[in-house]
Amino acid sequence: DRGDVGREAAEKVAGLLERCKALQDAANTHSARIKYDSQILSQQATSVVADIKNVRSFINSAQDEINPRLAEKLEEDLFRARSMVYEGDAASLLPAKPNGYFLSTLLGPVNVRAPRNDVRLKVKEEYNSYRDRTAILFLAFPVILLALKNWCWNGCFPALPVQLYQAWLLFFYTSLALRENILRVNGSDIRPWWVYHHYCAMVMALVSLTWGLQGHPSCIRKQQGVRLFLAWAVMQGIAMLLQNRYQRQRLYTRIALGKAGRMDVVWGETSGVKGQIWVLYPLLFLLQIFQFSIGALLLRTSITEDESEWQMVACGLLLLIMAVGNFSNTVATVVAKAKI
Amino acid sequence: DRGDVGREAAEKVAGLLERCKALQDAANTHSARIKYDSQILSQQATSVVADIKNVRSFINSAQDEINPRLAEKLEEDLFRARSMVYEGDAASLLPAKPNGYFLSTLLGPVNVRAPRNDVRLKVKEEYNSYRDRTAILFLAFPVILLALKNWCWNGCFPALPVQLYQAWLLFFYTSLALRENILRVNGSDIRPWWVYHHYCAMVMALVSLTWGLQGHPSCIRKQQGVRLFLAWAVMQGIAMLLQNRYQRQRLYTRIALGKAGRMDVVWGETSGVKGQIWVLYPLLFLLQIFQFSIGALLLRTSITEDESEWQMVACGLLLLIMAVGNFSNTVATVVAKAKI
Ligand SMILES: CC(C)(COP(=O)(O)OP(=O)(O)OC[C@H]1O[C@@H](n2cnc3c(N)ncnc32)[C@H](O)[C@@H]1OP(=O)(O)O)[C@@H](O)C(=O)NCCC(=O)NCCS
Ligand SMILES: CC(C)(COP(=O)(O)OP(=O)(O)OC[C@H]1O[C@@H](n2cnc3c(N)ncnc32)[C@H](O)[C@@H]1OP(=O)(O)O)[C@@H](O)C(=O)NCCC(=O)NCCS
Repeated sequence: DRGDVGREAAEKVAGLLERCKALQDAANTHSARIKYDSQILSQQATSVVADIKNVRSFINSAQDEINPRLAEKLEEDLFRARSMVYEGDAASLLPAKPNGYFLSTLLGPVNVRAPRNDVRLKVKEEYNSYRDRTAILFLAFPVILLALKNWCWNGCFPALPVQLYQAWLLFFYTSLALRENILRVNGSDIRPWWVYHHYCAMVMALVSLTWGLQGHPSCIRKQQGVRLFLAWAVMQGIAMLLQNRYQRQRLYTRIALGKAGRMDVVWGETSGVKGQIWVLYPLLFLLQIFQFSIGALLLRTSITEDESEWQMVACGLLLLIMAVGNFSNTVATVVAKAKI
Repeated sequence: DRGDVGREAAEKVAGLLERCKALQDAANTHSARIKYDSQILSQQATSVVADIKNVRSFINSAQDEINPRLAEKLEEDLFRARSMVYEGDAASLLPAKPNGYFLSTLLGPVNVRAPRNDVRLKVKEEYNSYRDRTAILFLAFPVILLALKNWCWNGCFPALPVQLYQAWLLFFYTSLALRENILRVNGSDIRPWWVYHHYCAMVMALVSLTWGLQGHPSCIRKQQGVRLFLAWAVMQGIAMLLQNRYQRQRLYTRIALGKAGRMDVVWGETSGVKGQIWVLYPLLFLLQIFQFSIGALLLRTSITEDESEWQMVACGLLLLIMAVGNFSNTVATVVAKAKI
């Protein structure tokens, strides 16, 4: 009967409307409460962090008047207090580092902070495994190019495959820069330089894309820059793999120990890592020297050669800047770790 | 006295430790409760959405047996019910669209969904104002290049300024693609094509960067592609400004009406927008025809010319694909709006 079906439909719709209204109210209450509670907690967290700082400076200023053994114990306690705030879910309640120009231009005013600690660790772990996956490509790409040059291309690179590699590099460095910025917002202590370093690498990939390869009469001489660059990329790929292994192990040690702060896992503690350090650091310094010399070579060539391209100057300068920055930041890391 | 200061410090540290412990507990409870509550609410939201669908199909299947006036009213009620779920804070409790390959490769597994409706609207508004700000640049860049070519560069573009422009385009399209993906995750009904379209534009900017400009003996003939591209960019800049005005006004109407869904603001309702439509759509179609003809011209040139570059073929194809896609999606939008 016509009326019956209509009545049934009307009842169903009315029921739905009510449920939707209730859901809407519940959701509004829910998000208002979250907002309210996290504001309160976030004030508490901020004041606790400030007080930790105050107490630490009080202890430091009164160093002569406190028993050294006690001072050491108090220092440890303060460290534990800090860890409780920074490593747990409370961390996301502290005022966030701002997104910065790069993130806010590319992504807009979106919040990339993970609300819970387990999510934050997941983001970090995925970053590590992304670097692992891409390090393979990073290594394979130049090896294949160099091999093909010798076996198939009679010693001269065709432009397209090299440009594909450079485009991939641009994409890759962009993703690293984005991900590292996100890690920073989530409280990572990554040195700013390692992010700037990826901006430099992005610019270099962009510049090298505009660097016409073809049409040179004497490719063997002209393509020396590309050959050097690829050889360096192979070395860097190996270093990346080692670095990943090392940093992943550090992360695991850190999760296991449940400790906070950048300097938590000091040299002595990380028994699993210590062996790797003696391979990693020399390789890094070697790489940086090599990077510096390629940069210097490019600059020298651009001065001596007649019709040198601006790309040669730009890439040379960028390589020099990156080499110096990488070196001084690696040294600073070593010094900071040795101090503890 | 030595003992006194030590005791004072120890007390302070003990107090701090207690406060940190309390804060840690409170933060853990807080985030556990958020997790728990939002799981429950999110189940409710999902079931309500499913039921809305069920009731709607029940009404549709029983159409002949329901009084048309009643059916219309019920349809309206269902629409209101849907709005309550999709426009309020409940929206963030519905299962999120996955990040997609582009976002998850570039950003990692980070959550870009805004938790509250006001934040979501802010992201959208900032997207609109970003497009406004950049449309000016988008317009200024090619105008300046074309002007300088005529007045200072004797009819031939030097490579560097054009490449700077292309690099900026790459950056710009990347930011648009990222932001639109984020809007999608936040529930925008943007057609997927407008995002793919920006991927195509990214690839084209990349390809055009590798397209050596200099060293051509007859630049006037060789640089025809660049000239056409710049002229098209000027037109596109104007269209972008118009499109922004129109879409911003739509957003405001929508916020004012408090309605949900893509098709909410139908043609008739948007009185403020209706006048603009008659300028915008013809201009868009004109632009698409122009885009198609540049693509065709590039392809034809690459066939007739002797030593044509692969970049010409690639850019020509990309322009054709974009023109066809833009056209058919604009038509589909018009058709969808006219239907209501
Ligand atoms: C020197 C080096 C091994 C030190 O690593 P480390 O022991 O993890 O350094 P720190 O203890 O200072 O790390 C602090 C934080 O920064 C991160 N970090 C350090 N170097 C990083 C890098 N190059 N890229 C990304 N993150 C890095 C760490 O993972 C850690 O993050 P967390 O706070 O989220 O746990 C490392 O910085 C490195 O390999 N740098 C590259 C050196 C180089 O010159 N390469 C040549 C060109 S590829
Ligand atoms: C045709 C056009 C004007 C329709 O705009 P519209 O009326 O807002 O379209 P819809 O109603 O389908 O919009 C649905 C959603 O997609 C968004 N959207 C539509 N087209 C968009 C585009 N090109 N870029 C970004 N977002 C777009 C809308 O803002 C709306 O978002 P919301 O759900 O968050 O509110 C618009 O799509 C357009 O200008 N497209 C570009 C056309 C073109 O060919 N340009 C030439 C090259 S630049």
